[in-house]
Amino acid sequence: MRTYIKNLSEQKNEEVTINGWVDVARNQGKMAFFDFRDMTGKVQGVVFGKPEVLEVAKTLRTEWIVAVTGRVNERPEKMVKEGVVNGDIELEITDIKVISASQDLPFDHSADLNLQTLLDNRPYTLRRDRERAIFTVQHNILQAFRNFLVGEEFTEFRAPAIVGGDAEGGTEVFKFDYFYDKTAFLATSPQLYKQIMVGVYERVFTVTNVFRAEKHATSRHLNEYTSLDLELGFIDGPEDVMKLETRLLNYVTEHLKKVCSAEFELLGAEFPAISDGDMFPSMKLKDAQKLISEGTGVDCTKEPDLEPEHERWLSDYAKKEFGSDFIFITNYPREKRPFYAMDDDQDEGTTKCYDLLFRGLELISGNQREHRYEELVEKMKWKGLDPEKFSFYLQAFKSGLPPHGGLGMGLERLTARFLGLANVKEATLFPRDINRIDMLLSGESSSEEGNKEE
Amino acid sequence: MRTYIKNLSEQKNEEVTINGWVDVARNQGKMAFFDFRDMTGKVQGVVFGKPEVLEVAKTLRTEWIVAVTGRVNERPEKMVKEGVVNGDIELEITDIKVISASQDLPFDHSADLNLQTLLDNRPYTLRRDRERAIFTVQHNILQAFRNFLVGEEFTEFRAPAIVGGDAEGGTEVFKFDYFYDKTAFLATSPQLYKQIMVGVYERVFTVTNVFRAEKHATSRHLNEYTSLDLELGFIDGPEDVMKLETRLLNYVTEHLKKVCSAEFELLGAEFPAISDGDMFPSMKLKDAQKLISEGTGVDCTKEPDLEPEHERWLSDYAKKEFGSDFIFITNYPREKRPFYAMDDDQDEGTTKCYDLLFRGLELISGNQREHRYEELVEKMKWKGLDPEKFSFYLQAFKSGLPPHGGLGMGLERLTARFLGLANVKEATLFPRDINRIDMLLSGESSSEEGNKEE
Repeated sequence: MRTYIKNLSEQKNEEVTINGWVDVARNQGKMAFFDFRDMTGKVQGVVFGKPEVLEVAKTLRTEWIVAVTGRVNERPEKMVKEGVVNGDIELEITDIKVISASQDLPFDHSADLNLQTLLDNRPYTLRRDRERAIFTVQHNILQAFRNFLVGEEFTEFRAPAIVGGDAEGGTEVFKFDYFYDKTAFLATSPQLYKQIMVGVYERVFTVTNVFRAEKHATSRHLNEYTSLDLELGFIDGPEDVMKLETRLLNYVTEHLKKVCSAEFELLGAEFPAISDGDMFPSMKLKDAQKLISEGTGVDCTKEPDLEPEHERWLSDYAKKEFGSDFIFITNYPREKRPFYAMDDDQDEGTTKCYDLLFRGLELISGNQREHRYEELVEKMKWKGLDPEKFSFYLQAFKSGLPPHGGLGMGLERLTARFLGLANVKEATLFPRDINRIDMLLSGESSSEEGNKEE
Repeated sequence: MRTYIKNLSEQKNEEVTINGWVDVARNQGKMAFFDFRDMTGKVQGVVFGKPEVLEVAKTLRTEWIVAVTGRVNERPEKMVKEGVVNGDIELEITDIKVISASQDLPFDHSADLNLQTLLDNRPYTLRRDRERAIFTVQHNILQAFRNFLVGEEFTEFRAPAIVGGDAEGGTEVFKFDYFYDKTAFLATSPQLYKQIMVGVYERVFTVTNVFRAEKHATSRHLNEYTSLDLELGFIDGPEDVMKLETRLLNYVTEHLKKVCSAEFELLGAEFPAISDGDMFPSMKLKDAQKLISEGTGVDCTKEPDLEPEHERWLSDYAKKEFGSDFIFITNYPREKRPFYAMDDDQDEGTTKCYDLLFRGLELISGNQREHRYEELVEKMKWKGLDPEKFSFYLQAFKSGLPPHGGLGMGLERLTARFLGLANVKEATLFPRDINRIDMLLSGESSSEEGNKEE
């Protein structure tokens, strides 16, 4: 009968058996000390005064898999490790069975690794405390994202990755031979399917892999990532999407506070401030640019977008002015935004598009979509796209769609930003980039990997 | 202020406004009758005695999007539609605002459609009651699958679709040009990543799109589908996976009974029988073949696998003998099973692999994996695979893995089987097959589509 490590303190002074990994092994002559790890936690174990057990104990190496029987002893008061799970107990080991051995490992869990070594050895390095913490947080972001939306009556749907065309134009796409001598593409976003699904269920979301064939090698780019996408029907304006997004991010933050405080502490990360109001602070791009120009003395009011230093400036401003880690920037010019974004008739030349900045960086983009068939076809033509190629998608508009809007965000980016990780690849289990699919593509080491920022 | 249709009966005799689609419009001279639909349900509405409202009402067509204001009237007792949501009320319409119009639609929601027409017009036909019911059930299967596993302390992870090699050999794969003049492939399963992740979290699951380049055109094949995958560490044998699977399917069934009884009724589908024991009935392949041979008089004991008619025979047997819609068949021969399946030393030449049959068809495959590094490398060589190409995956085994096993199942197939749908494409929102990516690839109609069974 296996006892999970997190439950050991309920069985003080009893003999129990745990299953798990040797996390650390320390040999000290007539005694042997261990940290054991299972999916629920860690515990210290010690062998002394049992020669036949000590003999087995001395063969154990890091990552060996063992069944360990022992008595759960309370530690003497001055040996208690405060604030550490199982810091008040240790296992006095009476029996060890080796379930599975590891081979010689390339380095210790505590080794200081650069990103390339970390990724080259991912199946092993993912077992480190730091990496397990990152992806436990990611797991919980996923659960919170979906639980919030299901609670708001959203329906989840599955979007295809194989698509018949490069829907949005402009992004580099991967393509391959399909049947009938046709070329198929890998989806850069589930955008068009989300909008089709608004016609079916009003409120929909999907979690799906998307693909970009961009030749970037930076700390922000991945060639495959997980997109968290939602779409909301019957809105009065983009503010309805922004309000939903505010509540969603508050919900995710609250959930993480509840279940991931140990992980945040281990990673030295700070939870975002929860918004008191129903929406994070918001301003139009041109107003933001005026503020920045006044604040920095450098005129940026003619730019179509924000530069990285402007995003940082605005985030500092939002923190000082509103006490918020988040700020919405709205009304981006139509030249720079996709064909499906709705124009804002109240503000000539701009769209009902917004970006959410978080601690100096763009986190999430969203907008109200053009739901009117004729206007949408016009917008496609204006963007140089052929409506004929969008005939399947356009069926949804011919069949009647309500005003709607939505947003998409990269799960890996979101994880990295929440945890303050420098490179998005640290928050990607198996990153695909210009240099790497699991292992580096070229035999040579790439000095660029992950270090260059655009 | 919008009232959701499902909440109307709480507001009897009050004036409310609903937002939604015109589901059905019936014009009768001085009166007009409607069914309106929003994401929460349907309600009847009627216009009479209001000439200016009737004028607008008469312009409404199916799928127009409207805001309708009216008084929630109780129907006279003999007009009440028993067992129908909102069957006891109707909306006496006082105002109609058109939010968005549809264009001429190709056919009515009640039209009898063949599969090709259904799929050619997917953005419109998905709005039919039947299709919305199918994908509401699918949404709920997804939620139940994950909620069950999260409750069992599984960690969700994201598996990549872009992979560096055709991992398992044998299946047709899609390939494309990646960077550095390398060829990349689309994953046929998250198998190898699941096993790597067992080393990190013991119990893991993922929901991800997988791809098969097979040139089949049958009612069972898709070239892209959603794989529900889980992997479980520290097992004593494949029975531990089979028991988990039994509880999982019981959980999914209970959840669907709770929230989808209307959908099952609409689709004429029956819920599977819940298992009383801790595992569905199980038998070895060779014992099953003996039974079949005795029962049918045709010897099949030399075959390496079950024929479709054998699967049906065994399902009938399980139903009669055990009252179960499910039956496990175990110990398939090693020649026919993948390299990572563990051999069963107790039964020479067989593996710790199993299939779950459900109502005459194979539903889910699972097995205990080979977790020992040397044995695994031997098995690869025996299968003609080059261990060198698996070096990334093999790191997990060098780093120590506990005995583990798992299963994978297609979401679309599971949905189709639970609902008794003849073709898996009916349970696929946007099916990709040899003939179709959204629209048919060839201009011509394909008489084969969905009708041929292998």
